[in-house]
Amino acid sequence: MKIYGDEQSGNCYKVKLMCALLNIQHEWIHVDILAGGTNAQAFLAKNPNGKIPLLALDDGRHLWESNAIINYLAMGSDFLPSDAFDLAKVQQWQFFEQYSHEPYIAVARFIAKYLGLPDSKKAEYEAKQAGGHKALAVMETQLVRSAFLTGEHMSSADVSLYGYTHVAHEGGFDLSLYPAVQAWLARIEALPKYIPMGQ
Amino acid sequence: MKIYGDEQSGNCYKVKLMCALLNIQHEWIHVDILAGGTNAQAFLAKNPNGKIPLLALDDGRHLWESNAIINYLAMGSDFLPSDAFDLAKVQQWQFFEQYSHEPYIAVARFIAKYLGLPDSKKAEYEAKQAGGHKALAVMETQLVRSAFLTGEHMSSADVSLYGYTHVAHEGGFDLSLYPAVQAWLARIEALPKYIPMGQ
Ligand SMILES: N[C@@H](CCC(=O)N[C@@H](CS)C(=O)NCC(=O)O)C(=O)O
Ligand SMILES: N[C@@H](CCC(=O)N[C@@H](CS)C(=O)NCC(=O)O)C(=O)O
Repeated sequence: MKIYGDEQSGNCYKVKLMCALLNIQHEWIHVDILAGGTNAQAFLAKNPNGKIPLLALDDGRHLWESNAIINYLAMGSDFLPSDAFDLAKVQQWQFFEQYSHEPYIAVARFIAKYLGLPDSKKAEYEAKQAGGHKALAVMETQLVRSAFLTGEHMSSADVSLYGYTHVAHEGGFDLSLYPAVQAWLARIEALPKYIPMGQ
Repeated sequence: MKIYGDEQSGNCYKVKLMCALLNIQHEWIHVDILAGGTNAQAFLAKNPNGKIPLLALDDGRHLWESNAIINYLAMGSDFLPSDAFDLAKVQQWQFFEQYSHEPYIAVARFIAKYLGLPDSKKAEYEAKQAGGHKALAVMETQLVRSAFLTGEHMSSADVSLYGYTHVAHEGGFDLSLYPAVQAWLARIEALPKYIPMGQ
C-alpha cells in the first residue's frame, strides 16, 4: 500500500503513527502542497477533494480522510472495540476532532508556525484560541475519568486526537492548564512502538 | 431512547431521518439553543461539548456527534456495509461532510436564513461560497458514477450528506449546477419511509 502525505501535517502523521503502532508496511509518497501537489490532475483523480493524507491500495482503490484511513488500518486490531456502543464512541471523538478541535488548534498552529503569525492573520489566530481551549477542556473532562478517550483501552480515537493535541503549544495553547491531557499524551508517548512526528 | 435536538438543524434532522428509515421508536426532546439549552449544566453533564444532537440510552449512557449517532443506530442494518473497505468509505464521506461541507453550506444557510444576511455577516457569507461549491462538486464527481455516495446501495453516509445538501439553496447554492446531486436528492426523497425536515 501507498500513503500520500506530508510528515509535518498532523492529519498525515495520524496515519503514520497508526502504521507504526500496528507494524503496517507501506510506501510513503511525499506530496508538496505549496508546490500544488494536491491540485495536480493525477492527484485529484485519486481524491477529488484535493487533500492529503490519501491511502492507495495495491488493487487500485483509494481512501481519503485521515480518520477513515486509520480506522480502516485498525480494523480487527485492539485499537477498534467490537462492541457497537464503544465503536460509536470512537467515532464520536473522531467527529469531534474534525469539527471542534482541528479547525481551531491546527489552524492556529499553522498560522503561528508556518506563516509566522503575520499581522494580517492576527485576528484569525486570536479567534481560534477560544475554540481550541474549549476542545481541550472537553478532552480534560473525559481524561480525568479514564486513561484514554473511550475508556481504559487505547483506540484509534486517541491517535486521531493525539495528532494535533501534542503540538497545540505551537498554536499558542498552554497545555499545563490541562493536566489530564498532559498525562494522556505521556501515556501515548511511552508506547514501545510510538514514533514522533516529522521523521 | 431519547434524542435531544432541534428539528430545524440539519445535524439533528440526520438523526430523525435515520430513525424514520429504520422505524426506531424514540422520545424527541426539543432543546432551544438560543435560550441557552445547550449551555445548561444538566445538558453539559450529558455532552461536555454543549451541542445537539445528543442520544440518551435508557441505561443512562450518552452519545453525541450526529454522524456517530446515525452509525450507531444503523449498525446491523442495510445502511452500513459489512465489508471493511466499504465501511471505511462510509466514514470517509462522513468526515468529508463534517470538515469540507457542513462548515461552508450549513454556515452560509444559517447566516442567510436565520440571521437574515446582515451587513456584518456578508463577508463571512461570501467567504463560505467557494468552499460550499467545492464540496458539491466533489459529491457530483462521485454521483455521476454511482447512485449513492458509496456505490449502488444507500448508506448512512447518504443520510449525513443529505442533511444540509437538500437545503443548500437556502445558503445561496444553485443546485441546478449539480444534476447528479439533484438526482440523488430525488432518489432519497422517493424512499417510502422518507420524512422531510422540520416536522
Ligand atoms: N479532513 C481531512 C483534512 C485533511 C487536510 O486538511 N489536509 C491538508 C494538509 S494537513 C491538505 O491537504 N491541504 C491541501 C488543500 O486543502 O488544498 C483529513 O482529516 O484528512
Ligand atoms: N459536529 C456536531 C455539530 C453539532 C452542532 O454544531 N450543533 C449545533 C446545532 S446545529 C449546536 O448544538 N450548537 C450549539 C452550540 O454550539 O453552542 C454534530 O455533527 O453533531
